Amino acid sequence: MKNLNVGIVGYGFMGRTHSNAYRQVNNFFPLKHRPVLKAVCGRDAEKVKAFADNWGYESVETDWRKLIERKDIDIIDIATPNNLHAEIAIAAAKAGKMILCEKPLALNAAEAQQIVDAVEKAKVPNMVWYNYRRIPAIALAKQLIDEGKLGKIFHYRAKFLQDWTINADVPQGGAGTWRLDVNVAGSGVTGDLLAHCIDTALWLNGSIDKVTAMTETFVKERKHTETGKMQKVGIDDAAAFLARFSNGSLATFESTRYARGHKALYTFEINGEHASLSWDLHDLHRLQMFDHRDPGYVRGWRSIHVTDGDQPYMKHWWVPGLQIGYEESFVHQVADFLKGLEDGKSVGPTFKDGLATDKVTDAVLKSAQTGRWESCQ
Amino acid sequence: MKNLNVGIVGYGFMGRTHSNAYRQVNNFFPLKHRPVLKAVCGRDAEKVKAFADNWGYESVETDWRKLIERKDIDIIDIATPNNLHAEIAIAAAKAGKMILCEKPLALNAAEAQQIVDAVEKAKVPNMVWYNYRRIPAIALAKQLIDEGKLGKIFHYRAKFLQDWTINADVPQGGAGTWRLDVNVAGSGVTGDLLAHCIDTALWLNGSIDKVTAMTETFVKERKHTETGKMQKVGIDDAAAFLARFSNGSLATFESTRYARGHKALYTFEINGEHASLSWDLHDLHRLQMFDHRDPGYVRGWRSIHVTDGDQPYMKHWWVPGLQIGYEESFVHQVADFLKGLEDGKSVGPTFKDGLATDKVTDAVLKSAQTGRWESCQ
Amino acid sequence: MKNLNVGIVGYGFMGRTHSNAYRQVNNFFPLKHRPVLKAVCGRDAEKVKAFADNWGYESVETDWRKLIERKDIDIIDIATPNNLHAEIAIAAAKAGKMILCEKPLALNAAEAQQIVDAVEKAKVPNMVWYNYRRIPAIALAKQLIDEGKLGKIFHYRAKFLQDWTINADVPQGGAGTWRLDVNVAGSGVTGDLLAHCIDTALWLNGSIDKVTAMTETFVKERKHTETGKMQKVGIDDAAAFLARFSNGSLATFESTRYARGHKALYTFEINGEHASLSWDLHDLHRLQMFDHRDPGYVRGWRSIHVTDGDQPYMKHWWVPGLQIGYEESFVHQVADFLKGLEDGKSVGPTFKDGLATDKVTDAVLKSAQTGRWESCQ
Amino acid sequence: MKNLNVGIVGYGFMGRTHSNAYRQVNNFFPLKHRPVLKAVCGRDAEKVKAFADNWGYESVETDWRKLIERKDIDIIDIATPNNLHAEIAIAAAKAGKMILCEKPLALNAAEAQQIVDAVEKAKVPNMVWYNYRRIPAIALAKQLIDEGKLGKIFHYRAKFLQDWTINADVPQGGAGTWRLDVNVAGSGVTGDLLAHCIDTALWLNGSIDKVTAMTETFVKERKHTETGKMQKVGIDDAAAFLARFSNGSLATFESTRYARGHKALYTFEINGEHASLSWDLHDLHRLQMFDHRDPGYVRGWRSIHVTDGDQPYMKHWWVPGLQIGYEESFVHQVADFLKGLEDGKSVGPTFKDGLATDKVTDAVLKSAQTGRWESCQ
Repeated sequence: MKNLNVGIVGYGFMGRTHSNAYRQVNNFFPLKHRPVLKAVCGRDAEKVKAFADNWGYESVETDWRKLIERKDIDIIDIATPNNLHAEIAIAAAKAGKMILCEKPLALNAAEAQQIVDAVEKAKVPNMVWYNYRRIPAIALAKQLIDEGKLGKIFHYRAKFLQDWTINADVPQGGAGTWRLDVNVAGSGVTGDLLAHCIDTALWLNGSIDKVTAMTETFVKERKHTETGKMQKVGIDDAAAFLARFSNGSLATFESTRYARGHKALYTFEINGEHASLSWDLHDLHRLQMFDHRDPGYVRGWRSIHVTDGDQPYMKHWWVPGLQIGYEESFVHQVADFLKGLEDGKSVGPTFKDGLATDKVTDAVLKSAQTGRWESCQ
Repeated sequence: MKNLNVGIVGYGFMGRTHSNAYRQVNNFFPLKHRPVLKAVCGRDAEKVKAFADNWGYESVETDWRKLIERKDIDIIDIATPNNLHAEIAIAAAKAGKMILCEKPLALNAAEAQQIVDAVEKAKVPNMVWYNYRRIPAIALAKQLIDEGKLGKIFHYRAKFLQDWTINADVPQGGAGTWRLDVNVAGSGVTGDLLAHCIDTALWLNGSIDKVTAMTETFVKERKHTETGKMQKVGIDDAAAFLARFSNGSLATFESTRYARGHKALYTFEINGEHASLSWDLHDLHRLQMFDHRDPGYVRGWRSIHVTDGDQPYMKHWWVPGLQIGYEESFVHQVADFLKGLEDGKSVGPTFKDGLATDKVTDAVLKSAQTGRWESCQ
Repeated sequence: MKNLNVGIVGYGFMGRTHSNAYRQVNNFFPLKHRPVLKAVCGRDAEKVKAFADNWGYESVETDWRKLIERKDIDIIDIATPNNLHAEIAIAAAKAGKMILCEKPLALNAAEAQQIVDAVEKAKVPNMVWYNYRRIPAIALAKQLIDEGKLGKIFHYRAKFLQDWTINADVPQGGAGTWRLDVNVAGSGVTGDLLAHCIDTALWLNGSIDKVTAMTETFVKERKHTETGKMQKVGIDDAAAFLARFSNGSLATFESTRYARGHKALYTFEINGEHASLSWDLHDLHRLQMFDHRDPGYVRGWRSIHVTDGDQPYMKHWWVPGLQIGYEESFVHQVADFLKGLEDGKSVGPTFKDGLATDKVTDAVLKSAQTGRWESCQ
Repeated sequence: MKNLNVGIVGYGFMGRTHSNAYRQVNNFFPLKHRPVLKAVCGRDAEKVKAFADNWGYESVETDWRKLIERKDIDIIDIATPNNLHAEIAIAAAKAGKMILCEKPLALNAAEAQQIVDAVEKAKVPNMVWYNYRRIPAIALAKQLIDEGKLGKIFHYRAKFLQDWTINADVPQGGAGTWRLDVNVAGSGVTGDLLAHCIDTALWLNGSIDKVTAMTETFVKERKHTETGKMQKVGIDDAAAFLARFSNGSLATFESTRYARGHKALYTFEINGEHASLSWDLHDLHRLQMFDHRDPGYVRGWRSIHVTDGDQPYMKHWWVPGLQIGYEESFVHQVADFLKGLEDGKSVGPTFKDGLATDKVTDAVLKSAQTGRWESCQ
């Protein structure tokens, strides 16, 4: 068992999911590496200390540059808001660190390209935390598609619906609400939610050629947490686009934070010649499958409860019928990353995969401006 | 096309469902007989006239004995409260009429036996309106069981839950509420709702050897519609029983009118060695099926939308995906009865089948008194 | 009770649903008019005679012009393929007949405008058979929106998914498959399925300003039933569009006949400030509602089983919990039309409403060509 | 922060869930005590060492008596098969240790009484691992009942269905299959699965007066893992019972390992005068609620996604919409136990609660023999 020292930058929501993953992975997966919670870095010394105490980090830093300089750090985990990803990632690459970066990879594709260039030059292992690929039901979908169970694909549709910003009193900027500040987040639901939908789609259904999109900002001004003043909202509250995949299939994508009744309804469906699949984050342990090869009089959508040992990841957990939660997707991602190190193989989503998603989100935002179809290449 | 003149006794809820069935059956099913709405009989001359006008009955009667005496009547349809079934049915049999009788067949098994004796002696076609056998999804369940898809049966469970009598102001006796008057209904949920569950169960899973039961009357006194006075409630508001089928399977049955939130939730499930099926009246066009022979990693409960032409009865209706309603089960029952006449075959549920159900409900009521297991034979 | 003589043109799928509606409406709804099945018209004398016999039409015609000339016909019901709607409707209007026309109103908006002009000049009652408005669950949705329960609307999404033309052996042209022949149908899923989605949307959420769309024809050639030869397929197999409503809400619409596993999955969802609603044709008796005004810890999507007497249309049917089917939506439409005659009020969807939908479908088809946003006005 | 040293006996399925709970609890819950994984005890020295290494236990023991003798152990956690619970628990009580014991508390009520006597004499904190009380959705159900939202209770129904022993080749005895060996397990589904249903029921709905039951053993002989020989199966494969609660409500309970298609379908429903609740382990993050106080035309079962900060336990986890898994129920149980220590309060389910459940399971097994109603007191 070889220890790998983790230095994480950021201690918000994602700081917690990543820390939990590092702590749990070796209890459930047989691996040759063990992540060690070596250091956590954040600007607020008091808060970062409290986080370190809570999770068992051995040390703290308040300057991420110092963290990167430390010789005892093997992995830099970037769990900061989006506007810091590029600078930190490029510096970490230069320092020869392995890098795990939160999604989206960067504020835009140009920035993401710089990051990719940096890690390719440095030849360091890298991964973007698009965790949904490691939900067992989604991994099963990927397996079924790869096995050819669906045949030719006709349609893909995905949406990610939330409702937490309908109240105009929700501020922009600051902890918990930086996602509403365009300077920090880069974009609104496009980079935050559609990016998840796109990463999964590219993984399951291949590349997207072009898109036509619309975006909307329903609440035009919100108070900024830092200035205390009402400021124009620069992000997109809602975004939707039509897409054509390279494999000839048609797609619709939609995301919003104004869909009353949906907390985090990420759902996708894929329709093939022989079979269709659908999934829903609100019941993440289930995969719906329709198989046209079943006899006609007993065909129907099957609700597959993905908790059995012969389904992806599940033999490492409990017994059939007992579901795992959202956070296990991060455990799986760490497990796969560490297995990749063992095997000397790159494991996706790599930064290059993250760049591909950023190219699509760029095209979405551009099309919303031009009113035309835009290429994603 | 041969006309068959129908004389119906009763013009309540069931009078409507039967009349609608007679009117629709030849529009949808190719048959050699055509039911003609010849006469409707009820004690209230004004109301029975209005019913006749509404549905197109050619004549009215206010005395069922006169109806039975009429030479121009081929079929007597008994849509009265339970306490009149036996007398009418026996008289109709003696008069050589075909008889379609609402369920339950009689107030108890002894009375039901007399009816059976009468029709067997008279050799007249007969049928009990246990309409749920003709829901396409249930007919499909029967087909799958007969095909051996389930293998050895381990379990059967059924319930029929309603909530319309929780309010203590609901009276007993009279139109719409005669089901709460023990003298008219014979029993409460046992004869009204469990009887449906039992008829389906006997059809799908064979005979029941014995039961142990409990019943309860939550509201002890209700005003009687006829007397205007508070009177002791003699029916069972709720009933549940355990059962052992002759095929070795175990069962639970439950019925109540005190299950808040359920209007008419009749549901059953049957678990076999290889497959299981379940169904629910609130979505009556769906059959749930789990098939263990599916590959392990994609097994799941299939929600079969029973609206396709290769599924029972459905080629006679619309196009795939378009559901039919509750009332079509009565249309199907008439269609099957008329087809039976063509083919010279007796079609269930016959009065003998109705007697079998009454034997089980008698055992349930008896066990609720004795606190012991009681035989259903 | 006043009789209204119906002369119907066409005896296919829609000929059956309309005939059934005329036959059932007076049994269930108290009305002052009674539709009489006077005549059915079709080119094939033998088939039209068989249809008349089956449904009880008193006479037959093989030339719709003769039907319109008959003095004993009050209502012309157009249940033909789309390419005949305009000619028949305009002639019927000139003859002063009331007109009920199948959807879509015409092959395109220009043709629809001519029909509207004709009925407005003739001042004859008219209606398009967009039957889904009369599904009780959808009528309840309309009621809730009109009551202001949803507040400001942010999003609307609808889709209508089928899978019956995936097989390349399905021909174009002829009975049952004329919907694949562009010369007869005008368009593919856009006029057939999206038109339904659009009519409901305009009714529930007001007018659409503009759209951007894509369409696809997956199977490029199909054998034509009449010529027996392989011919280019001119219809759209799939279509999707983004839309902006006049009330500021954003929408996505999609329709296809290549979504494996969906027979007739028409579904819509509407998200408002205070509440959201969704509905699905595969369980047409249910309306899903999320009400943000419920206390936070017990909020959830309610599955409303629309079978109660205090819900639209349902007091005319059975008892709570017992669902009706697809065909009752046509019964309700006739009932509302007849009630409108009693009250001297125009009842939607009128031909003018049908024109509005055709303007949207025209814009969809145009945008799919231009790749740009197109106005629907 | 005070450390509490845990010594756990057993390293099977439950050894893993408990260990995970001790490791996670302080990362998510603010508490004054911290469980320390001090020692794990098991008979197989090699396996127990591997378990200790995997989970980070500081030491190992192969004799539970030695573990209890250790001064550095504060808590004895009994995660062994059922036949060892009593002896270990009584010894641990005498040694003054806090005790957390897996369910069921003992092989029968007599044995359970001895355990209760021991802990009451020793005055040591104690708890049974009936973890389902700590599923957030079930805790919310408890809250709603305690708030009086349901009013008078009429019905309770629960079942726990599995299908993993249908194959007659599943052996009895040994790791993973000791639950089929009556000498080790005490009973079959009654003590294993019904015990869970009963514990929840007693917590939510109060005490049970009496029951009438049936049990069945479908596979009469199975190979014993230790002897290698076919031996009579002494456990119950399936069990069902009717019950009457002290509050006047009626109940049905059922459990089996022969319900094809159900891996671990623990479900319950409770019907009250004003509202009903239901829950299902296969979607453990949802609570279904029907509230009759909603306006009639929009009443429906609400699917409450129990992932919000104002719902039990959830503010300690992620963000709304993101579900947690089965194992968190154990984390919650440790958190509540530790909070009880802080507050000096006994937290259920205590051993006394465990005894109450054993009294019901004893009555169930007895009734299955006598065929009569048996008292649970």
